[in-house]
Amino acid sequence: MFNYKLVIAYDGAKYKGWQRLGDTDKTVQGKIETALSRLIEKEIEVVGSSRTDAGVHALGQVASFHHDEVLDCEELRTDLNKYLPDDILVKELSEASEKFHCRYNASGKTYVYQIWNDDVVDPFKRDYYAHVPESMNLNRMRKAAEMFIGEHDFTTFTTAKAKKKSLVRKVSSISIEQAGKQVFIRISGPGFLHNQVRRMVGVLIEIAIGKREPNVVLELIRAKDRSKCGVTAPPHGLFLEEVKFN
Amino acid sequence: MFNYKLVIAYDGAKYKGWQRLGDTDKTVQGKIETALSRLIEKEIEVVGSSRTDAGVHALGQVASFHHDEVLDCEELRTDLNKYLPDDILVKELSEASEKFHCRYNASGKTYVYQIWNDDVVDPFKRDYYAHVPESMNLNRMRKAAEMFIGEHDFTTFTTAKAKKKSLVRKVSSISIEQAGKQVFIRISGPGFLHNQVRRMVGVLIEIAIGKREPNVVLELIRAKDRSKCGVTAPPHGLFLEEVKFN
Repeated sequence: MFNYKLVIAYDGAKYKGWQRLGDTDKTVQGKIETALSRLIEKEIEVVGSSRTDAGVHALGQVASFHHDEVLDCEELRTDLNKYLPDDILVKELSEASEKFHCRYNASGKTYVYQIWNDDVVDPFKRDYYAHVPESMNLNRMRKAAEMFIGEHDFTTFTTAKAKKKSLVRKVSSISIEQAGKQVFIRISGPGFLHNQVRRMVGVLIEIAIGKREPNVVLELIRAKDRSKCGVTAPPHGLFLEEVKFN
Repeated sequence: MFNYKLVIAYDGAKYKGWQRLGDTDKTVQGKIETALSRLIEKEIEVVGSSRTDAGVHALGQVASFHHDEVLDCEELRTDLNKYLPDDILVKELSEASEKFHCRYNASGKTYVYQIWNDDVVDPFKRDYYAHVPESMNLNRMRKAAEMFIGEHDFTTFTTAKAKKKSLVRKVSSISIEQAGKQVFIRISGPGFLHNQVRRMVGVLIEIAIGKREPNVVLELIRAKDRSKCGVTAPPHGLFLEEVKFN
């Protein structure tokens, strides 16, 4: 068996997220599998590194698939991009080692959340920035963001249910940068729970605009209570920027 | 009577152009008139500087309207932006002199045409760049562009009919710049005919990719024959950047 790795960018606006749900649902995974299966003339299943939600974008999603024959990667990439809709782009396609698994081997993921901080949004930015019209205090936001760093139980910040799995996750870094009316929140860690980044960002925005105090981050982490978070930032500001591997 | 001037940006993708056609058609002028009329509680008609086509964008369209009462411009601008869809933004609203007319007093217009020159288009750029996959020779394009400078009969480059009006127009400047995979063609002049910029750009692209010779520009100008142009660049790459006044 041969193992192939894809690096994919997509505009998630029109998709119900990465993960294939049914045969008829419009998902990025579904679109890629359909394209690959037609081109290779064999049913192909791809595995993605991150299950991005409906409306969330990707600059560097990573996926992989197995095939029992050698493929011409450059030719397949060209054909895939001709076949795929123009809101999905295969940036790279290469052979990976036989044991490579893009979910289990992922050592780190970086998400970037884009905010347009002004009373009105530039019409050409509206699809990729969340709108925050209130004045934002970024130092307050940075102080709060530091409290997320490290290993914590993120029960409050996810809609995922614990069952038998741990909801402890590590946040490696958070940077908050400003460029004119744009604010970028970049969050890195080995892996994130469902909705975790958007809930963290939602709380950080409320802190920045003075609606909550920075210390609320510690309180929410300690509470381990999903009902206490109260806010999820909209999906269209979120981008899966990069997936790193060991 | 008081005279008010608007500077407007819009994403033209969902509109049948600037110019109101009927009561039910989706045009930018129609949207702005409806919003103004509701807010001012009186039927308002606006005049635009340029009749941008369906799908063409604007960074700085200028429009004006008359009203018999003094208006609070800043308040009205804020209300308009709340009322208008998020693909139309009123950037400025100010009182103009009584005699100001945004079509007759416009002394110059600048359009910029955006091209994505690579085998595939970045999914986040696809709505605002025309895709040219072929290798482009920009020096060849610049040489051809120079032939457009000055006053010419642009019959070949418009779908407008002569009737009694002259189809002579002046092109003041054309600049062609590259930034990575992006190519920007910036065209300025006192005024342009219907489809003129997109037809000029279409021909320039064919010259850049080697499909036609630079001298074809002179031949097409001399021909004064609409059927000879043969190509119109797609609307989604075109932006009305600026309107200047004396």
